[in-house]
Amino acid sequence: MNNQPSIILVEPQLAENVGMATRAMMNCGLYKLRLVNPREDHLSAKAISASSGAEEILYNAKIYKNTREAVADLQEIYATTARPRNQIKIVHTAENAAKEISKKIKENTSNIGILFGPERTGLHNDDISLADAIIEIPLNPKHCSLNLSQAVLLVGYEWYKNQITAEDVRFVTNTTTLASKEMVLNFVKHLEQNLSEHPGFKDEEKRPHMERNLQNIFTRNHLTEQEINTLYGVIKYLKHK
Amino acid sequence: MNNQPSIILVEPQLAENVGMATRAMMNCGLYKLRLVNPREDHLSAKAISASSGAEEILYNAKIYKNTREAVADLQEIYATTARPRNQIKIVHTAENAAKEISKKIKENTSNIGILFGPERTGLHNDDISLADAIIEIPLNPKHCSLNLSQAVLLVGYEWYKNQITAEDVRFVTNTTTLASKEMVLNFVKHLEQNLSEHPGFKDEEKRPHMERNLQNIFTRNHLTEQEINTLYGVIKYLKHK
Repeated sequence: MNNQPSIILVEPQLAENVGMATRAMMNCGLYKLRLVNPREDHLSAKAISASSGAEEILYNAKIYKNTREAVADLQEIYATTARPRNQIKIVHTAENAAKEISKKIKENTSNIGILFGPERTGLHNDDISLADAIIEIPLNPKHCSLNLSQAVLLVGYEWYKNQITAEDVRFVTNTTTLASKEMVLNFVKHLEQNLSEHPGFKDEEKRPHMERNLQNIFTRNHLTEQEINTLYGVIKYLKHK
Repeated sequence: MNNQPSIILVEPQLAENVGMATRAMMNCGLYKLRLVNPREDHLSAKAISASSGAEEILYNAKIYKNTREAVADLQEIYATTARPRNQIKIVHTAENAAKEISKKIKENTSNIGILFGPERTGLHNDDISLADAIIEIPLNPKHCSLNLSQAVLLVGYEWYKNQITAEDVRFVTNTTTLASKEMVLNFVKHLEQNLSEHPGFKDEEKRPHMERNLQNIFTRNHLTEQEINTLYGVIKYLKHK
């Protein structure tokens, strides 16, 4: 649990939004929440309900009077902003910040916090000036306003992607296994034999081309053993008079 | 507008969620919405309010009776699922699917749709079987349930990242420019000259080390011209008796 950044919500207005933010945190494996001067009770029924199963994060949240206190024991602070602010500061994309934060935490060099501002206004400039760097989430500039939980979700999602090694693509075959090439080619041969009874398939000129087409169709889609058996059944049923 | 995937919400339960989904779509520059048999009126006041400025997407949404009709004129379909389903299918991470979809659309090879299921149950297996491939968003397996708009947001965000070239890191200096090295080093020299009046700085042994420290401190943080001027002022004010 120490090997992750703290999510710091500064003056959140609605307890429901705090609850939804904890749901987003748990989606991303983030459990450390700090709240600066929340306007509503973060343990209200509304908050618990909105957390949708992540209420342990609400119960364990640390509460602070102001942002300065909330960051006092941390070593590096990132501030999330929707738009560039008048401050001379490094600005990261969410993706790049997540990489940097993950690297620093893996190397055990820093206790890190990520600031999120109040729903309506975003972070105050005074709070941004406490941060080492800014995180900007790249979004449609014509419509970049996010609600609080969505901002937490996107930053958390980028963080989570750095914690796991998800395969970019995989092929799910469930309980059955991929058919061997022999099995696929035997099926194609069986199909051809059954087709050869039809006069349209007897045209010696067209036949090699049609055979190649069939082979392409059935080798392209990674058939499983179960599916090959289904296809044998299809032929059998079609031929039934 | 043609160069983007259609977002297809299958049997969404609450109009509010449809509205929030359009807000997330607009955040990500996605404008093409299809609705399959929505339970509530997607143009209700609740939906418009939840869309938070993205109501044009609601007004332009196309409505279908069933998923088969909604995908009929499209060429490739991706289905989003929270958990693996019993279907033999290619499964992409959201990131990889977004790359693939972007590439296909840039090459003009496909009209693409992305299916999202009803809030409570996710997509029916029959609808998943209409899809060429599955999108799984990598999230904490202990808590991977997302609300509809958040699922749309994460898939849309990955799509949007492929449409832009955001700098990973940049340094914002606003109206002022970065100070030249000469300006920085002149300032450090000025500081040293002012310090040299103090007996603690006269120790010939310690002095080179202290000078190097000062130079490190003030060259590490990319000072702007304006900030250098502020620092000259700091020295002046400190020396004022």
